[in-house]
Amino acid sequence: MGLEGEQVHQSGSGWSPVYVEENLGVMSVGFLLGSPDDAVIWRGPKKNGLIKQFLRDVDWGEVDYLIVDTPPGTSDEHLSIVQYLSATHIDGAVIVTTPQEISLQDVRKEINFCHKVKLPIIGVVENMSGFVCPKCKKESQIFPPTTGGAEKMCQNLNVSLLGKVPLDPQIGRSCDRGQSFLSEARDSPATLSYRNIIQRIQEYCEQQHSLEEKMI
Amino acid sequence: MGLEGEQVHQSGSGWSPVYVEENLGVMSVGFLLGSPDDAVIWRGPKKNGLIKQFLRDVDWGEVDYLIVDTPPGTSDEHLSIVQYLSATHIDGAVIVTTPQEISLQDVRKEINFCHKVKLPIIGVVENMSGFVCPKCKKESQIFPPTTGGAEKMCQNLNVSLLGKVPLDPQIGRSCDRGQSFLSEARDSPATLSYRNIIQRIQEYCEQQHSLEEKMI
Repeated sequence: MGLEGEQVHQSGSGWSPVYVEENLGVMSVGFLLGSPDDAVIWRGPKKNGLIKQFLRDVDWGEVDYLIVDTPPGTSDEHLSIVQYLSATHIDGAVIVTTPQEISLQDVRKEINFCHKVKLPIIGVVENMSGFVCPKCKKESQIFPPTTGGAEKMCQNLNVSLLGKVPLDPQIGRSCDRGQSFLSEARDSPATLSYRNIIQRIQEYCEQQHSLEEKMI
Repeated sequence: MGLEGEQVHQSGSGWSPVYVEENLGVMSVGFLLGSPDDAVIWRGPKKNGLIKQFLRDVDWGEVDYLIVDTPPGTSDEHLSIVQYLSATHIDGAVIVTTPQEISLQDVRKEINFCHKVKLPIIGVVENMSGFVCPKCKKESQIFPPTTGGAEKMCQNLNVSLLGKVPLDPQIGRSCDRGQSFLSEARDSPATLSYRNIIQRIQEYCEQQHSLEEKMI
């Protein structure tokens, strides 16, 4: 997002998010640090306290989507988010994997976690899914899907596959500059894949909301 | 390691590690699960309790090296390991990064954490460091080191760079089969890099131990 070193501002109505664009506000523990290299050396309870503050004390305004990016795992952060937002009805989880079995083994646990805490799963994204050499245009599976990748896992577990995002050096370059890869590489296969995934998530959420309205 | 679905055995002298080879024993929370897909949905205190048990109640026998693989971050797992092993003198931390600035931003925090808890840093490994296309043999920087990669960061922070490991599809394939990549791809550049890194870690540890003996 290119926001390293940014600081949070306090207003009468709470903490203000840092705005990347008019319609994209961000909140991060990084904004509370004295220096960008400072580590946040906190055990679970302090992390949970901050998550609660980010949900309750930030002046988010009217938002269409609130996206929470969690670390891998099924621990404090994940439990707290689900618990604190339980009354608001979370649309669901987007789960990201890479194609190898060793990643799928962890992702199956994440899926199991979602089932246990009754969090709907919007779908799975397969990241780092193949690489087309810019020199010879031939594709390599750098992280080979030895057991069928996300596609097979999603079939087996009856979960939607939202899409596959190929490796592309421009993604890392755009991120490092804090620029939007989707604007900088408009026609790349990875951009098309991202846009398709976004559209499927939107459709899922809109469908859920129209169902809810009918039920009300 | 190819140990998914393995179970831990209890003996008179504690839990027994699962042995991959005669000289390589492993302990993992995965061995305590009913099913390989079960999630370990634990908050910090339960995780800390298990870490303590793994250090205290496992019959490790005489070991040359005890390697603890932690998740990313600077939270419960990292604090507990350092705290529980403080009396034994930890040789140090090996920190793994990828070449992009966005990864280095996190790794600088890990380095800061080590300084704060007085944990020596053996060095930094740069993983996913370039990819040689198997079709045309030309190299691509899939995760471009836009700010100089681990090399520049290590110079700036006065930390050793232990080596760079290139991307190689055979690594993922070997891992998924639970086979040793170092045995299966003896002459690959990644194997040479791994062996070089291992040697540098060994030398560091041996040097530390001989210094300690002199001090006694």
